[in-house]
Order: sequence, then structure tokens, then C-alpha cells
Amino acid sequence: MKKIWYEDEKSDKTPIISSRIRLARNLSKYYFPAKMSQEDSKNLIADITSSLKNISSCEDFNYIEMSTLPESEKISMVERHEISFAMLKSQKPCGTLANANKSINIMINEEDHLRIQTVLPGKNIGASWDLADKIDNIIEETLDYAFDKDFGYLTSCPSNTGTGLRASYMVHIPMLEKTGKIQDLMVVLAKLGMTIRGIYGEGSEPLGSIYQISNQVTLGKTEQEIIEGLDNIANKIIENENGVLSEMLNSQPAVMEDNIHRSLGILKTARIMPLKEAMGLLSAVRLGLNCEIIKESRPNLNIYNIMMNVEPGNLQKIHGENFSENEKIDILRAEYLRNMFS
Amino acid sequence: MKKIWYEDEKSDKTPIISSRIRLARNLSKYYFPAKMSQEDSKNLIADITSSLKNISSCEDFNYIEMSTLPESEKISMVERHEISFAMLKSQKPCGTLANANKSINIMINEEDHLRIQTVLPGKNIGASWDLADKIDNIIEETLDYAFDKDFGYLTSCPSNTGTGLRASYMVHIPMLEKTGKIQDLMVVLAKLGMTIRGIYGEGSEPLGSIYQISNQVTLGKTEQEIIEGLDNIANKIIENENGVLSEMLNSQPAVMEDNIHRSLGILKTARIMPLKEAMGLLSAVRLGLNCEIIKESRPNLNIYNIMMNVEPGNLQKIHGENFSENEKIDILRAEYLRNMFS
Repeated sequence: MKKIWYEDEKSDKTPIISSRIRLARNLSKYYFPAKMSQEDSKNLIADITSSLKNISSCEDFNYIEMSTLPESEKISMVERHEISFAMLKSQKPCGTLANANKSINIMINEEDHLRIQTVLPGKNIGASWDLADKIDNIIEETLDYAFDKDFGYLTSCPSNTGTGLRASYMVHIPMLEKTGKIQDLMVVLAKLGMTIRGIYGEGSEPLGSIYQISNQVTLGKTEQEIIEGLDNIANKIIENENGVLSEMLNSQPAVMEDNIHRSLGILKTARIMPLKEAMGLLSAVRLGLNCEIIKESRPNLNIYNIMMNVEPGNLQKIHGENFSENEKIDILRAEYLRNMFS
Repeated sequence: MKKIWYEDEKSDKTPIISSRIRLARNLSKYYFPAKMSQEDSKNLIADITSSLKNISSCEDFNYIEMSTLPESEKISMVERHEISFAMLKSQKPCGTLANANKSINIMINEEDHLRIQTVLPGKNIGASWDLADKIDNIIEETLDYAFDKDFGYLTSCPSNTGTGLRASYMVHIPMLEKTGKIQDLMVVLAKLGMTIRGIYGEGSEPLGSIYQISNQVTLGKTEQEIIEGLDNIANKIIENENGVLSEMLNSQPAVMEDNIHRSLGILKTARIMPLKEAMGLLSAVRLGLNCEIIKESRPNLNIYNIMMNVEPGNLQKIHGENFSENEKIDILRAEYLRNMFS
């Protein structure tokens, strides 16, 4: 895969946008990040970088130190899910080690020493796991992880202890959201040790009908069980989302067409576009492309990519301008969207 | 003037859409319509038709008898302000006598024996009055009006007695509406013996920011005083509407552009379009054309003409179909509007 995952247009065609694995790991030789010295932080970064440099298949890894980046670039990385909100405020040496197509992106010195993250477009959690597992093994060849035979991998927050694994699907489920079925889904997921959250994880507001579905429990289950459990629920979600969609397309085609075409019409013409509205309109257009209500006006970009581009940091990066007022951002967002869809 | 008044595109450029005169008249030889026999109703129609047939300049007059029309055609005429709601339900012979371009349109046997109506595009109340006065004089040459030297022209409803004159401007005042200044205007008008009402007169809801401003008082003032009073207030309204518009264009150009371009975008794309929303969007587009925010996408029709065409009766006439459900009408309205603006 040469492209970055969100540049893949195939992933625009199904409710599943991406498949993400995150492994929380700590090295036994250092304190956890909360108690770690500046010196050890630097050593940790050197350790990880060199452990991966020895591997020929990974030679395109590039370390980015957070303190060297302008604020807007860091915000852009949060918006692209490359770093966490927590990393924005870190006072210690920390950063990311990523390959060119961003399928592998290791956060160093965030809440844990390592957050090995892999992400692939579409419904591919198995392949994403294989990739993370491979990186995990490579690092383990040269470095000792903090590991307990009873508890498994030790982590800063006990909720991650055990496998240290979070497997998640990013899903676009406008029909389940609109019909309120997402509430039922939450109950089912909780019973299965899984959770559903907004686009930017814990506590974030759902935008554009995009949700993250992931395992909540990291202890007492094998990695394979966690991944299979997530895959089963993802199949159900796809089935339900597509089921409601078919039903609506049959019973109220004009309502569906009206909503989707209006959304595209507004994206093509608005001069002021708040983020939340943009996400809602892009969600309708993504749905319209998938069910072929929209046949023309296909933008060159994956809709989810456009969704990330209309976030303030990415918009600033694209425009190369500093905005001060909210209205200015909303005007540039509208301009960007008109260009995308005209 | 060859065109029908609402086909005139110049009238699309100012807040004043049309200038209308209505004279209420009754013949002395018959009872008022409420007490009139079927036989006398027929005689009345014959009297008026023949009084106007003798005039060479009016030879293009055409009488339309209401009982010969399908319901949808009658509703279409109400929507075009050619007949009143009251006339829809009449059990007696009644109808309209109109010239080809509809600048003169005489309702026969409505609330009064005659309602001589003249309408011209734009701000032309003086010319509209001259036309009505001419017709009034022609009829008076051969027929006797019910007239009292103290009270003036006698009418079924005492509120019309005296001059029997209602002079009205149809105005498009979106900025005065949006800023709530229309409330102040109502107070001022009431003090001056004038009134402001929705698009279909008394008790009708304002749609598309279109209002009728007319004299309330018909007694104790000369025709000339009534018309001059109305013209003075119309000048003030134009000044205020354009003043608020300029202010908004200066202070919040993006907000204005956003609203106007979105409105056009929705008209071009919607698949279901309720009447009220259509009128609001058309109002924004009319404003956008006037202040040149919209430079392309000028439809071939006067916007006010389109506003009348999206009313149910006219829509049915254009499509030649009978609708049963509301949704069906809303779908055809959306289709008509997409065709107009694409």
C-alpha cells in the first residue's frame, strides 16, 4: 500500500472507514512517563528509533519530535489521529515514529512509553493486527517490555493492562444514528466489553455520524478473541446500517434524495460553513455516493479525508494562513468545500 | 404594455413589485349581490360586458364565467390575484372581465357588483389609478352607479363606502422583515389610515417577505389624497429597505452572500420543497439578484412570477396533473424549481 489510508477511495464505499490497532507498551528499564526524567525520555526515543532502524523492511520510519513543530501542525496531527490530545501539552521529549504511508505510527512517551498504532482503510482489522504484532515483535527483540506473568503488559493506566490492545473500527453509520438505533447498539456493546465513541475518542461529540467502535476490556481475553469479537459486531453493524438504508430507500426515496442532494447543493454554494454543519453535510454526501444517489460531483478525495481537512488545523495547513476569528475559519472552510465539489 | 405585469423583469429590481387599484362599485338598478337573484346576476354581467364592448380601445376584453372553470383553474386565478377567495365559493353567475395583459381585470358579482382592478408592474400607482379611473368613467357613461351625495359610492361592506378605492403596493421587504422593523412600520401605517398584510390580503400569512401595503380608510379623503399618501409611505419603505440592505452588505457581506448562495443552491438541488420554504428561498434569490450577489443563474422568469407558479393551483396547471398528496406537490414544486434555476 503506497497511499495513506485516508487517501484510499475504496474505503469510501462501506460503513467501515478504517481498522485501527493500538498496543500500549512500556520498557522495563525506565519509570512510566509520569515519573520519567527528561534524560530518560531522550534515551527512550533513541532506544525505539534504533530498535526499528535495524530492520530493513522498516527503513522508511521517520521520527518527528513534538517540540520542533508549530502548534498548528500538532493540531493537524491530532485531527488526522496521528497523535493524541494529551501529547499536545507534553513538556517532555516526545513524538511519533511513522512510516511513509502512516499505516504504522508509534507515539513515543505519551501516557505509556509506546503506543504502537496501525491503521488500514476499510474492514481490515486482522491485517492491521498482523502489522502491529510484527512491529511489537521487532521491538521486543532488542528491548525488554514491562511484563507481568499474571497481569500481562503493564501500563500507566490499569484499564490498558493485560494485552495493552485497543482494536477499533471507525464507522460511518448515519442511518443507525438517524433512527436512534445507536442507543440500542451502545447497550449491546457494553455487555460485550466494547464501546462506541465519537470521532475523536473518549468524551468527544459525534460529528458527521462517525463513530469509533472498540474493545473496552484488555484483560482476561486473548488478542485473537478481542479482534474476533470486534469483527463480529462490525458485521452486525454493517448489516443493520445497510438494512435501515435499504428500507429507507424503498419506503421514502424522495426524502433520501432530497436530503442528499440538498447537502451537496449547500456544500457547493455556502459562504460560511461551521464545522458541525460541514460534517453533517459531508456525511449525507458520503451516504449519497455509497448508495449512488449522487452519480456526478464525485470529489477527487475520499470523503473522510475531506472531513479531516475541514478541521481547523488541517484547514490552516492547506491555506497556510493563521486565523484569529471563528468566522474567518468558517469562510475558508466554505471556500475549501466549494472548490472540492464544484 | 404587451406583457402581463408579472412577466415584466424590470419589476424584479426594486422592493415594489406591483401597483394595484381596486374600485368597488354597484349598479343602482340591482340589489347588492347578497340579495340578488340568479336572473339579475346574469343581467348584471350582460350590462357590464356590453358597456365595455362599445369602447374600441377595450375591444380585447374577455369575460370568464366562474362556473365554467375547473376548480384548479379557479385556484390558479386566486394565486394570480385575478379573483378573490370569496369568488371560489359563489353559487351565483359571476366572473371576470379582463384585457389580454391583465392590467385591467374586473370581478363581476363578488362582494360588490363590480370590483374594477388595475395592476401595473413596479412603482406605478398613479398610472394604475388613471387606468382604473378611465374604465370607471366608461362604465358610468352607460350605467348608473349606486351613489349617495353624502357617503359617496355605496358598497356591500361599509368599510369600502366613499371612494370605494383600495390602492395598494405589493412590496418585497426581506430586510425590514428580518430586522423586525416591519412591526414599527405597522404602527406608523395604522396612524396614517393604512395597513400592511400578507401576500393574499387580510389574515393571510406573510410568505417570501412579500406584503401588501394599502389604504384602510376609503371615506373622508379624495382619491388623490389616498394615492399620494400611499406613494409617500412607499418612498419611505424603499428608502428603509435599501438602507438596511446597504448596511448589512457593508457590515456582514459574508452572511448576506452565504444566505443568498445557499438559497440558490437549495433551489437547484432539493427534491422535496414545501411552499413556505420555497417562498423564503425565492425571496433570498430575488434579493441576491437585486443587489447583484447572484450574477449568473438568472431565470427567464420574474422571481415574483415563479413565486406565484409554485402555488398549488398554478403548479397543477403547469404540470397538467392532479395531485392528491401533499408530498407529491412538494416533489413537483422541487422539480419545477430545479428546472427554473439550472
